[in-house]
Amino acid sequence: MAEIGIVGLGRMGANIARRLMRAGHRCIVWDRDDAAIAAVVAGGASGAADLAGLVAALAAPRAVWVMLPHGAPTEQAIAELGDLLSPGDVAIDGGNTHWKDDIRRAAALRAKGLHYLDIGTSGGVWGLERGYCLMIGGEAEPVARLAPIFAALAPGRGGIPATPRREGRAPNVEEGWLHCGGHGAGHLVKMVHNGIEYGMMQALAEGLDLLRAADSKDLPEEHRIAVDIADVAEVWRRGSVVTSWLLDLTAAALAEDPALAKYSGTVGDSGEGRWTVQQAVETAVSAPVLTAALFARFASRDEGRFAGKALSAMRHGFGGHLEPKKG
Amino acid sequence: MAEIGIVGLGRMGANIARRLMRAGHRCIVWDRDDAAIAAVVAGGASGAADLAGLVAALAAPRAVWVMLPHGAPTEQAIAELGDLLSPGDVAIDGGNTHWKDDIRRAAALRAKGLHYLDIGTSGGVWGLERGYCLMIGGEAEPVARLAPIFAALAPGRGGIPATPRREGRAPNVEEGWLHCGGHGAGHLVKMVHNGIEYGMMQALAEGLDLLRAADSKDLPEEHRIAVDIADVAEVWRRGSVVTSWLLDLTAAALAEDPALAKYSGTVGDSGEGRWTVQQAVETAVSAPVLTAALFARFASRDEGRFAGKALSAMRHGFGGHLEPKKG
Amino acid sequence: MAEIGIVGLGRMGANIARRLMRAGHRCIVWDRDDAAIAAVVAGGASGAADLAGLVAALAAPRAVWVMLPHGAPTEQAIAELGDLLSPGDVAIDGGNTHWKDDIRRAAALRAKGLHYLDIGTSGGVWGLERGYCLMIGGEAEPVARLAPIFAALAPGRGGIPATPRREGRAPNVEEGWLHCGGHGAGHLVKMVHNGIEYGMMQALAEGLDLLRAADSKDLPEEHRIAVDIADVAEVWRRGSVVTSWLLDLTAAALAEDPALAKYSGTVGDSGEGRWTVQQAVETAVSAPVLTAALFARFASRDEGRFAGKALSAMRHGFGGHLEPKKG
Amino acid sequence: MAEIGIVGLGRMGANIARRLMRAGHRCIVWDRDDAAIAAVVAGGASGAADLAGLVAALAAPRAVWVMLPHGAPTEQAIAELGDLLSPGDVAIDGGNTHWKDDIRRAAALRAKGLHYLDIGTSGGVWGLERGYCLMIGGEAEPVARLAPIFAALAPGRGGIPATPRREGRAPNVEEGWLHCGGHGAGHLVKMVHNGIEYGMMQALAEGLDLLRAADSKDLPEEHRIAVDIADVAEVWRRGSVVTSWLLDLTAAALAEDPALAKYSGTVGDSGEGRWTVQQAVETAVSAPVLTAALFARFASRDEGRFAGKALSAMRHGFGGHLEPKKG
Repeated sequence: MAEIGIVGLGRMGANIARRLMRAGHRCIVWDRDDAAIAAVVAGGASGAADLAGLVAALAAPRAVWVMLPHGAPTEQAIAELGDLLSPGDVAIDGGNTHWKDDIRRAAALRAKGLHYLDIGTSGGVWGLERGYCLMIGGEAEPVARLAPIFAALAPGRGGIPATPRREGRAPNVEEGWLHCGGHGAGHLVKMVHNGIEYGMMQALAEGLDLLRAADSKDLPEEHRIAVDIADVAEVWRRGSVVTSWLLDLTAAALAEDPALAKYSGTVGDSGEGRWTVQQAVETAVSAPVLTAALFARFASRDEGRFAGKALSAMRHGFGGHLEPKKG
Repeated sequence: MAEIGIVGLGRMGANIARRLMRAGHRCIVWDRDDAAIAAVVAGGASGAADLAGLVAALAAPRAVWVMLPHGAPTEQAIAELGDLLSPGDVAIDGGNTHWKDDIRRAAALRAKGLHYLDIGTSGGVWGLERGYCLMIGGEAEPVARLAPIFAALAPGRGGIPATPRREGRAPNVEEGWLHCGGHGAGHLVKMVHNGIEYGMMQALAEGLDLLRAADSKDLPEEHRIAVDIADVAEVWRRGSVVTSWLLDLTAAALAEDPALAKYSGTVGDSGEGRWTVQQAVETAVSAPVLTAALFARFASRDEGRFAGKALSAMRHGFGGHLEPKKG
Repeated sequence: MAEIGIVGLGRMGANIARRLMRAGHRCIVWDRDDAAIAAVVAGGASGAADLAGLVAALAAPRAVWVMLPHGAPTEQAIAELGDLLSPGDVAIDGGNTHWKDDIRRAAALRAKGLHYLDIGTSGGVWGLERGYCLMIGGEAEPVARLAPIFAALAPGRGGIPATPRREGRAPNVEEGWLHCGGHGAGHLVKMVHNGIEYGMMQALAEGLDLLRAADSKDLPEEHRIAVDIADVAEVWRRGSVVTSWLLDLTAAALAEDPALAKYSGTVGDSGEGRWTVQQAVETAVSAPVLTAALFARFASRDEGRFAGKALSAMRHGFGGHLEPKKG
Repeated sequence: MAEIGIVGLGRMGANIARRLMRAGHRCIVWDRDDAAIAAVVAGGASGAADLAGLVAALAAPRAVWVMLPHGAPTEQAIAELGDLLSPGDVAIDGGNTHWKDDIRRAAALRAKGLHYLDIGTSGGVWGLERGYCLMIGGEAEPVARLAPIFAALAPGRGGIPATPRREGRAPNVEEGWLHCGGHGAGHLVKMVHNGIEYGMMQALAEGLDLLRAADSKDLPEEHRIAVDIADVAEVWRRGSVVTSWLLDLTAAALAEDPALAKYSGTVGDSGEGRWTVQQAVETAVSAPVLTAALFARFASRDEGRFAGKALSAMRHGFGGHLEPKKG
């Protein structure tokens, strides 16, 4: 059995520790919130008093998995690990970091004889039970050393049919973890994964919106069609081309409330959707769907509607139209 | 001097009559609203009691310009003219009609020996003074016969520099009226014109929105840039690549109120923007800008935000995110 | 056991017959191609000499499933069935028809005492083994009567986990067939399904293209990242948010050839992707992702590149740029 | 009369010098290409042997306008000027630089007592005759000092009608030059200008493409409409809503050759179109039109068509479609 340090015990970090311990691995954990530590220690982990304590509690060669909000918290933790770890140890960023930052950090750690792995971790709140899809960037040696850890976190083959013609390829890929390439490759693949996720989500959302609008009172009576959107989402789960986990989740939400009334209709976005569009711009790749998905979220939060006002001002200017002010 | 009947005395129809009368042409006018007739008669037109009376007051070969809201009102007026006019007469639809309807109507009128012209008329509330850009579809003979009418309505050369290398091309084009082609060609060209108009408007609106957001409180202090958007629009009117009439109108609106506070931010759309997208779909032409411009207007009016709710439901499903309800 | 007539024995029609016969149902089949009939008869069906013969071979109340290319072939077959069938019989269009055509046809058949069902059928070449997702529009009575047929064609529950909170809802939905609503509802739901399919496919394609481009020779050496796209698609099948049948198919294609060299890069489209965009325009729903996906296919086939030439002409005009002609 | 140093005598720099000299200003010029210097000296400028010589030839407080390709050449010239200039002097970047770089540079120069202005310069090859639209960022003092220079470069009021309600606003804006705000504001405004330019260009290009396709041989004969696109562009120049300089240029190109045969259809892009999209992403502004315009250019250059191949592979997977390889 292996041991690993885990820094950051939010929902993701805590569940990663739990899944590892279920598989028999030993976890030394730390979080700035003592209650978070206590909750994971109750599940069998050893708690550390601080980062230095966590490092001290691990036997060399050490592995420390940082699972913190992206930006300053992660940056600082990796920098501190750079001072605390010893040559041959490996610092892991399992959170959401831009791959260019990974390349920069890896070079800084390499100068101290340390390894660095960037791991895109997909699975969300379901990962504890379903397993995490792991997209790993960095040197081959620490990846090989940590294979038991990755195997424990990944979903495994489960009931998913094998893809034909994969003979001769690394079997761990089919278990749900992949050494994608050099530094940054893990987070690059995770970034693109999230971009695709945005696009697929928006495709589903637009389709459901079309079904809703098909019964609009503005349509001629003979062309209004009412469908039960919850049932539609459910039937598509069987044998259709759009079967997907996102559809499963959508069907579950619609089964609870077809009007989705508890949601506001404004939608947030995380860094990776934005980075994906910036990647498209930087590499001159046309990515209209991934971008439209991001912009739909921006538009959902546009309270000031200045662009719309500018359009109305132009229409007023040339046509005398004055859009009605809302009551 | 020529004479013409004008049916429909809204802002467009009344101003068309006025511009023709300024040029010395004779107008017989009718509208279902007596006050509208009286206003144009006060400017020198002859009023008719009904459509039959208007037709009777014209000498053959007659020309009757219908300037009514698109759809049923225009359809009915053209049908009635089909019964009232005599062979060799010409019925004109100067409004906003889908070009496929023009082709259908022209065939019906042709069977009765009547001509039909579809005329896309651009110029809006400014047309009376600035002149109307006329895009004409139909047979050559009635177009030639009505050239004096078109010349009076069109803006003329004005101060606009001539385009090089147009030697040998019809001079009327440079005066602002064009026989575009057969039936439907006038409204097709006007439809595409309006599609482009949507795209250009949205391009300007997005640009202004970017300038507004460049001073957002969400940005790091050192990267916030405040600009006076009214002055920016004004300076672009001189020597920049985006000089355009739409920019002139935008600059005027921003000079009045840089916040454009009298506009709601929700934006309507007319048939032609939609038809343009449908034309793109039918002819397999990629038209992402024209379509994005239309969808931005749809989104500005989306009160129910069902698509956004669906996105939030999916995010909640896989990540436990719950978007904040608006207060 | 039930019996049904099947008209049109292409890949879809023939496999539908086979799947029904496997479940013990009796099929009377016809196709204009005798060899197609013979192939299905070899599997146990009864062949008819023509449409009238097929109708005559069925006991009342009859059900005839038409599975022909959309447009004229289907239109004609339904019209002929309108003459051949008897009151209480049901004509089924299982192909790809616009829902407005369904509404029109249903009214015409109803006047003769006949039923009509529009059935969106998803499943493609995999349907024989995997089952077909059936989206059904029309009257309740013939739907209830044909439930055994639909149950045989649908995939059934399989290994797919049940959606929580569906207690009290019709169980057949979870087996993969849904009575969506009145006439046209089946094909409307199938149309939107295909629109979503286009969007999801394009999201995946753009993501893979970004991974390809991440190793572009145009990038600075330190920012080039090479990943094995076939392995990435495979790992995403386990535990990631984008797990989907389309991803399964993509992983299989990439496992065979990561360069996808046997495909040209030009992509066709069927009616339903276009109809979905037209539906969005008609119902004023912003659908940027579904539309971008369609336009990407149009653009992939744009040999003349006239829009690009127009852009270059403008750039040449204001900036003196002359885009290089391709050799 | 004022004097100014000009570094970089490509088309833009040389014409700026010429336009200034026409207005009576004195120009000291330098370029790494002696022939470029000689050509401008022949028009009345004084040539310098190197950057130090150029600085030495100017009287304090000096102004040096750098007009070089963006990136390293400009960066290096500004850095050298930082060493050569004296407190109170001003270094000007009139090229295309990202506004964040301006903020960085200005801080570095300020530490040496130097001023820095970022000037977005629009006008292209037409600027010499038509004047340049100047968008200026930086401190107020050097802007005021250089007002005669800006007035000479700007187009002036010309025949363009005044915008109503601008009373009390700075008159120079109506002459075509604007002090937009602090450091970076000039290039920010120019960046957004170029983004709008991309959007407007694409709107026009898509519209023309729709007109081209309206006569496609794939359409039913009765729905084919042939129009003369060169005449359409010309007539839109008079009285239509889309009148614009870009339309003027388009009409000129189409008058020369309606097929635009000398252009390849692949379209390049410059940094500012990309930066505009990145700005939208960073400031959470939905900018679908500006982005679609950029992506259309990317797509026009996509030789490998990997995204299209991925779509075809999926279609093949679920439907058995095999897209035809191009011959």
